[in-house]
Amino acid sequence: MKIGVLGTGMVGQAIAGKLVTLGHDVMMGARAADNQKVLGFASRTGGRAGTFVDAARYGEIVFNCLRGDVSIDVLTAVSAELDGKILIDISNPLDFSKGAPPTLSISNTDSLGEVIQRGLPNTRVVKTLNTMIAAIMVDPGLVPGPHAVFVSGNDKPAKGKVMDILRSFGWRDIIDLGDISSARAPEQFLPLWLRLWGALGTGEFNIAVMRRQGSE
Amino acid sequence: MKIGVLGTGMVGQAIAGKLVTLGHDVMMGARAADNQKVLGFASRTGGRAGTFVDAARYGEIVFNCLRGDVSIDVLTAVSAELDGKILIDISNPLDFSKGAPPTLSISNTDSLGEVIQRGLPNTRVVKTLNTMIAAIMVDPGLVPGPHAVFVSGNDKPAKGKVMDILRSFGWRDIIDLGDISSARAPEQFLPLWLRLWGALGTGEFNIAVMRRQGSE
Repeated sequence: MKIGVLGTGMVGQAIAGKLVTLGHDVMMGARAADNQKVLGFASRTGGRAGTFVDAARYGEIVFNCLRGDVSIDVLTAVSAELDGKILIDISNPLDFSKGAPPTLSISNTDSLGEVIQRGLPNTRVVKTLNTMIAAIMVDPGLVPGPHAVFVSGNDKPAKGKVMDILRSFGWRDIIDLGDISSARAPEQFLPLWLRLWGALGTGEFNIAVMRRQGSE
Repeated sequence: MKIGVLGTGMVGQAIAGKLVTLGHDVMMGARAADNQKVLGFASRTGGRAGTFVDAARYGEIVFNCLRGDVSIDVLTAVSAELDGKILIDISNPLDFSKGAPPTLSISNTDSLGEVIQRGLPNTRVVKTLNTMIAAIMVDPGLVPGPHAVFVSGNDKPAKGKVMDILRSFGWRDIIDLGDISSARAPEQFLPLWLRLWGALGTGEFNIAVMRRQGSE
């Protein structure tokens, strides 16, 4: 499948690299086409390099791997290219302007996922994979046990396709939290995730949802 | 040990009942001493019944099992009785006034745990047990696997005593998130917890923190 990946950071590199490995045709998009990170991705993996608009146009499905604080501006700029497509949103509304640990720039009564969906009414936004480090997103086997990934979105067939991609990454416990308003839940999990990182001294963990036997 | 339990709901009943079973001298406090739930607790378990102020005075350690929206008023009213004591805060700042799922009345840049600590500067507030249903709080063996409970608080010896109580309840993975400002993390987990309850169709679950092997 042709897939666009917006963003050249650790998350974008991990997602785009994994998609190439799985046999997809992948274009990574950056602000400028001569961005060194996007050219590095292309030469290293055989994937394609382009601008944000190029990658949004190229992909049948597009991943938002941008930082939360730039996601809305970039997605607004490429919105025409996202019409009718599935946008997989991995971004988090982290605000480091008041120091660490960060607060959330959007939370409680709204979420970045919802803001993105409202801004792209013809795009099927699915929030997922925003609750673990990039290495675990694309290789859940790094962590033992039945740990979980969450999906939120208004369009059930779109969520089904995203779940197929997640399964191809190795995910087994994929929990559908509901419509896009449920993106508030995994985004507000970030403060606990960051505190756990501090307490454990490593980001190499994820949460599992342990059910009582026989309660399902 | 003499322990006071503020609140007569499911959490208060579960905590107070468990403490009696473990051999502690427990007084449950209600708004009025003739509250039927507190009298029921006393007659059913052999524990004691009293008012909020009675229970706060009685306990060497006091549990706050009140709803979030009444916690501050009640704790302010009994604050003199809590001087120098450990207050174990289980409450959550859930706001159902805008319908379900609830939002948080305090979040992101503050927490109910911090508000309570600021209001009781001579009390050692430890936030814990606010991330699962009452039955699991006092019987973690209901859920399989290495699932976790979190503690937040400014006073390390107080957290140590609370961890001892948690171990006596059966908890094994007890994670110290940091000072009382880290209470923001488990409180902001509540939206995910509530969405998981909806997705799973049961509250009989808890999260486990799965670490990569060799990463600790």
